[in-house]
Amino acid sequence: MRGTLAELGEFGLIERITQDLVTGPQVVLGPGDDAAVVSVDGGVVVSTDAMNENVHFRTDWVAGEDVGHRCIGRALADIEAMGATPTAVVIALSTPETTTIRWIERFTQGVMEECETAHVSLVGGDVSRAEMISVAVTAIGQTGGRAVITRSGAQIGDTVALKGRLGWAAAGLAVLSRGFRSPRAVVSAYQRPRISYGAGVEAGRHQATSMIDVSDGLIADLRHIATASGVLINIETNQLPLPEPLQTLGHATGKDPLELVLTGGEDHGFVATFPEGRCPRTWQPIGQVLALDGSDPGVLVDGKEWLKSPGWTHF
Amino acid sequence: MRGTLAELGEFGLIERITQDLVTGPQVVLGPGDDAAVVSVDGGVVVSTDAMNENVHFRTDWVAGEDVGHRCIGRALADIEAMGATPTAVVIALSTPETTTIRWIERFTQGVMEECETAHVSLVGGDVSRAEMISVAVTAIGQTGGRAVITRSGAQIGDTVALKGRLGWAAAGLAVLSRGFRSPRAVVSAYQRPRISYGAGVEAGRHQATSMIDVSDGLIADLRHIATASGVLINIETNQLPLPEPLQTLGHATGKDPLELVLTGGEDHGFVATFPEGRCPRTWQPIGQVLALDGSDPGVLVDGKEWLKSPGWTHF
Repeated sequence: MRGTLAELGEFGLIERITQDLVTGPQVVLGPGDDAAVVSVDGGVVVSTDAMNENVHFRTDWVAGEDVGHRCIGRALADIEAMGATPTAVVIALSTPETTTIRWIERFTQGVMEECETAHVSLVGGDVSRAEMISVAVTAIGQTGGRAVITRSGAQIGDTVALKGRLGWAAAGLAVLSRGFRSPRAVVSAYQRPRISYGAGVEAGRHQATSMIDVSDGLIADLRHIATASGVLINIETNQLPLPEPLQTLGHATGKDPLELVLTGGEDHGFVATFPEGRCPRTWQPIGQVLALDGSDPGVLVDGKEWLKSPGWTHF
Repeated sequence: MRGTLAELGEFGLIERITQDLVTGPQVVLGPGDDAAVVSVDGGVVVSTDAMNENVHFRTDWVAGEDVGHRCIGRALADIEAMGATPTAVVIALSTPETTTIRWIERFTQGVMEECETAHVSLVGGDVSRAEMISVAVTAIGQTGGRAVITRSGAQIGDTVALKGRLGWAAAGLAVLSRGFRSPRAVVSAYQRPRISYGAGVEAGRHQATSMIDVSDGLIADLRHIATASGVLINIETNQLPLPEPLQTLGHATGKDPLELVLTGGEDHGFVATFPEGRCPRTWQPIGQVLALDGSDPGVLVDGKEWLKSPGWTHF
């Protein structure tokens, strides 16, 4: 078919993707061989993440460019959440042969732009045929010889703090699901999350004791920290930002903006715990780490249990 | 549904996969956080590879266990083909919620067994929902401070040599496509390729000038070396193994066993070029690297052009 991958072929597609590629100084060998070679400073940090058509995105809701931005951003957020610095990515792109060359070009453009923003190199990949589009991105980072920030180090008395947005992407998805395209700000937040690159190293400099990126929802992701650290975490809702577009959406749809903030994922903001007095100024304090006092590890909202769904889960 | 992923849930599935996990000494931090941390010796070698249901495998032809073995083996073969040592893998598993827990258990078992054989650690992954099964494996290896073996170093006069099998997996696929299950030897070769782990380091010790793993077909993959190195490669068919099961299949189906050997992929044997007299005894010499003499880089079979399809291509 004209204008589709069937016309371009596997190797034509690879050439199209890699033709304008610029790689950074840490790339010893870029795309084009059986594997790439990257030099890293300290330990190698690695994370992988898939995005599947009709599950993570619909091609009529999200342009190829946005899929490119989003798949890279969410993979790099996992490296940042370890307090590490992302260095390189590889992409396994599976797609039907009916996908248009135009879509692939826009996807590639999004990938390249996000890599540029993050100062990260695309070093390799794989393209293959599938019945639906699936994009699996693996990100590689470096510790720089510093200890990584895990989920298990939160200490009683620590301040829980946020960097980035909460609820925007969920609001955008709610809008699109209802067949609307505005408020534009939340729709574009869903289509293309903004990752706070450098947040990992910043948190490390301020002795963060634990850190995670909010991909499934604030409560759901803080629960991972609470469980791994064996603590209670209390979120103070009066500290949470309730931005205007979320309130607008709330009025229009009857959705509780606070619930979007507490349970909406996919903005890939960061939450971390800092020893008292060490929370960076650019982070928003949103709660405290408390002792268990006989209860199970978990997350409280204003001192109470959250009884609704805490966030997104597959299956 | 009982016995399916819908019952197990996302985190139940992750626990099922990681519960018996043993990781090697190079794993600083294993699965369970936003990313894993691995220590490597020298440069980081990285490659990614997807396997998609109904394209790379059919669940009625290949058991979950075999998919597990195969997805790890083919990813690690790319690291070996750089002359490097595989260290760790991450897996992005996308699957419908109707997939049975039994299939996942068998898949996981295959993954673990292949990792054990290769002395490699599974350090992380991602599970998500999709309309078809898709498994994207990223392999990480280390150079150990040695130069990697690329596709571009083949020199005129080098010996072309093979380690591993050719045509077996293609024969197995031909058998299954016709609705048969024997000869059993070729069917199981297709279901579960045997990777010659250590071949990369061995080739490096013998000053291999170029190397690739045969995933698409001998001619197709040697063409990559010929093009990258700017040489002609001549395959001598009287040097190629024509094993008995391939001859049996040839008699039964009218398929030319030599064509299976020259163009069949997915056995993941290795081909490399060695300076004269440096070919290891455990490798089979199968041809020579020749000067271009005015022609374009490419592959000859007994001095003649190969006019049929050289091997597998997506799209």
